[in-house]
Amino acid sequence: MNRFAGRLAGCFTAAALVLGTLSPSFAQDKVAATVAEKADAAKPAGSGVTDFVLDNGMQVVVIPDHRAPIVTHMVWYKIGSADEPPGKSGIAHFFEHLMFKGTKNHKPGEFGAKVAENGGSENAFTSYDYTAFFQTVAPDVLGTMMAYEADRMRNLILTDDVIGPERDVVLEERRMRVETSPEALLDEEVDATLFQNHPYRIPVIGWMHEMEKLNREDAVAFYNRYYAPNNAILVVAGDVDADTVRRLAESTYGKIPRGPDLPPRVRPSEPEQNTARTVTLKDDRVTVPSFSRAWVVPSYTTAEKGEAEALDLLSEILGGGVRSRLYQQLIVKSGVASSAGAYYEGGRLDSTSFSLYGAPRGEATLQTVEAAVDAELQRIREQGVTREELQKAKTRFVRSMIFARDNQAGMANIYGSNLATGGTIADIEQWPDRIEAVTPDQVQAVAVKYLVPERSVTGYLLPKEGASN
Amino acid sequence: MNRFAGRLAGCFTAAALVLGTLSPSFAQDKVAATVAEKADAAKPAGSGVTDFVLDNGMQVVVIPDHRAPIVTHMVWYKIGSADEPPGKSGIAHFFEHLMFKGTKNHKPGEFGAKVAENGGSENAFTSYDYTAFFQTVAPDVLGTMMAYEADRMRNLILTDDVIGPERDVVLEERRMRVETSPEALLDEEVDATLFQNHPYRIPVIGWMHEMEKLNREDAVAFYNRYYAPNNAILVVAGDVDADTVRRLAESTYGKIPRGPDLPPRVRPSEPEQNTARTVTLKDDRVTVPSFSRAWVVPSYTTAEKGEAEALDLLSEILGGGVRSRLYQQLIVKSGVASSAGAYYEGGRLDSTSFSLYGAPRGEATLQTVEAAVDAELQRIREQGVTREELQKAKTRFVRSMIFARDNQAGMANIYGSNLATGGTIADIEQWPDRIEAVTPDQVQAVAVKYLVPERSVTGYLLPKEGASN
Repeated sequence: MNRFAGRLAGCFTAAALVLGTLSPSFAQDKVAATVAEKADAAKPAGSGVTDFVLDNGMQVVVIPDHRAPIVTHMVWYKIGSADEPPGKSGIAHFFEHLMFKGTKNHKPGEFGAKVAENGGSENAFTSYDYTAFFQTVAPDVLGTMMAYEADRMRNLILTDDVIGPERDVVLEERRMRVETSPEALLDEEVDATLFQNHPYRIPVIGWMHEMEKLNREDAVAFYNRYYAPNNAILVVAGDVDADTVRRLAESTYGKIPRGPDLPPRVRPSEPEQNTARTVTLKDDRVTVPSFSRAWVVPSYTTAEKGEAEALDLLSEILGGGVRSRLYQQLIVKSGVASSAGAYYEGGRLDSTSFSLYGAPRGEATLQTVEAAVDAELQRIREQGVTREELQKAKTRFVRSMIFARDNQAGMANIYGSNLATGGTIADIEQWPDRIEAVTPDQVQAVAVKYLVPERSVTGYLLPKEGASN
Repeated sequence: MNRFAGRLAGCFTAAALVLGTLSPSFAQDKVAATVAEKADAAKPAGSGVTDFVLDNGMQVVVIPDHRAPIVTHMVWYKIGSADEPPGKSGIAHFFEHLMFKGTKNHKPGEFGAKVAENGGSENAFTSYDYTAFFQTVAPDVLGTMMAYEADRMRNLILTDDVIGPERDVVLEERRMRVETSPEALLDEEVDATLFQNHPYRIPVIGWMHEMEKLNREDAVAFYNRYYAPNNAILVVAGDVDADTVRRLAESTYGKIPRGPDLPPRVRPSEPEQNTARTVTLKDDRVTVPSFSRAWVVPSYTTAEKGEAEALDLLSEILGGGVRSRLYQQLIVKSGVASSAGAYYEGGRLDSTSFSLYGAPRGEATLQTVEAAVDAELQRIREQGVTREELQKAKTRFVRSMIFARDNQAGMANIYGSNLATGGTIADIEQWPDRIEAVTPDQVQAVAVKYLVPERSVTGYLLPKEGASN
């Protein structure tokens, strides 16, 4: 089951899709598959990272990486789908698309052509909490990238003949990625059921009927409110020094006036939840049934000290990869499951979700797999984890973070996503130590406190005939 | 199962609670229990009703009723909990409480004392779509009532020492009415699951954690925005003529300047729903298990022509009282159920809910009752209803409306609630004819179109041990 369906919306390449989900709480097995282990990747986290703020309020982070003559240039806006006005779902992602249109100074496509001409790559993505744009290019065109990126921060041309066709594009994107996928449709309604009050219940890409009504007025209001240097973070990773980045940034972004002061990002939060819920979708296109069970849990931003780290390690021990309990018990030993795992979306601004999932193999039923997943969770809730398996999980987990940092864009992504969700550079640099400090008792405690069966939401994806709920 | 739990919040007397739910789509058996049939109650609907608008935009409706020397004076504000800003749940109901505090001209309690001194009664209530205040008094003090009511429309004193203690009162009201009631807690989460996007998912009384934060600033903003003559409807029913009402209204309400122009009441609407959901609460205090199954359906305001009337009659035929199919089959014939019925909340501004419910009797299980309720629904979806039972249902239904009109406050309530949710006086007067025009095919059609098992939300209220879901 693709746990990422519907979570991030953007114009992804396959590689960018993986990058788009990185954070201290990424699913490391997905990353490990895309990066190679290198000796020099193991240097201490955060070494040499510089940060400063431009006069207009734009935050700048420079991450030196001189292994190759490339540079990754990212701009992160502290605006995501969970900040959208009620009834305007999809506007954040729609706006990400509009950023690729023409400006007062450049025709549509000119920026992208410049990147391609340089042999570079570019992309963008939107999540619940941020919208980011990036290019990977040779260092000598970094200033050019900044000039283009700074230009579209304020100079977009937003006329009806730009808005209308691009709205059709995002509507088609929703049709392709969600409406044709029973899994994505189910994921949307699981989220809408899990979050009773918080806007994380609304899909990043938007609800179709609201996307259809997005218009020029919405786009202009959104642009003027959120696209400004004091709501943005510039992250530059690569073969460049901080002084150069500062000079280039001041001569491009630094010329843009500060935008409106924005209030703190306080979204409606969850009430106390008292019920167990299920969400069932039966569909002809489903051949193998599957389930996922989710809970609202704290994120790194909202957690009490140590709880987010404990949730990350719980997800690693329970279902983080081939060494996890779920994999070993359900896939290797009993063989009842074709897939089973755990996922914690710790890198969000507000309280987030922790989920378990599984699907049967061969003659096994979904009920068997569900009971087996429950049993593994219950075993941790009752008996905790061993010191030894926790130590191994920490090693795997921190190592995967190091792997992720080995990829330049991955590194930039870790800094950008953390800073855009309320974290600091110190948080990132101290994260391995905080992971190391987690005790077995803390892992058991978060399982007992948060993963309560009577307050869970379970999604069932079932074939139309046959396996019944 | 009390289908009203959590739907309306207010300072009800028992009688007012019943009145608070009246509308063309009320559950007539509940009303029939409180009023006596009288010969003169059968006069044509709407006879002699007058309406006009004051210069400041306040709508006025006068309903003559000269059977007794009493008058019911109601002011309806077109503001309910579904209009609240995100994160401020409970402010509409909280404000209803604050309206009983002191003004620049009158001490707290003075208005109520005047009503009591006259031998009258007063109350107020808040729903998703409106907030209403009323007094029933002798006609000679109608002008005094208007003076007091007009005074508190604009002159409330909203200081922190007023706000703080009253917030404690509404918090305690929530504790008493919701937190101590498994049924009410379940109802809240069923609504939060049924409505994925529309604010009807949020309880009228508010979520505890948001109510705790309501403050003076919120109250003042709410008052200044919504409490104004151009957002209010005055309904006077009783032993008084329209000219007198106009003269009194002009000399009281008429003196208040028009408030800000408000935008149309467009709330976020529901996306297409694709899943069947369940919401389960197990609680020590539950002795008999029960269930309810709900769907999002159009209201009188949002329905296509004839559909709301058909839904009302479907609810009447299926589960509207002792003559309904569910009652006859499950309670009288098979005896498996201690309760079973249907409920359609047609009187809302936006698309609303239709629900079925049941609880077992004796040795019968909840599963048996649930299957029997489903079978009755399925029978209508497949075979429709007979012309004869539809005719009987229409007669019962229209008759119950006439009964409701026999009660003066009930009559005022029908006009106020309809006008506050987008209806017109003509709608009310033509309602019996529209009910008469519904065909058996139309009843079957709305059942087939809207009551789809694969898109329902089922709530289960279960004892902690024993009956499992």
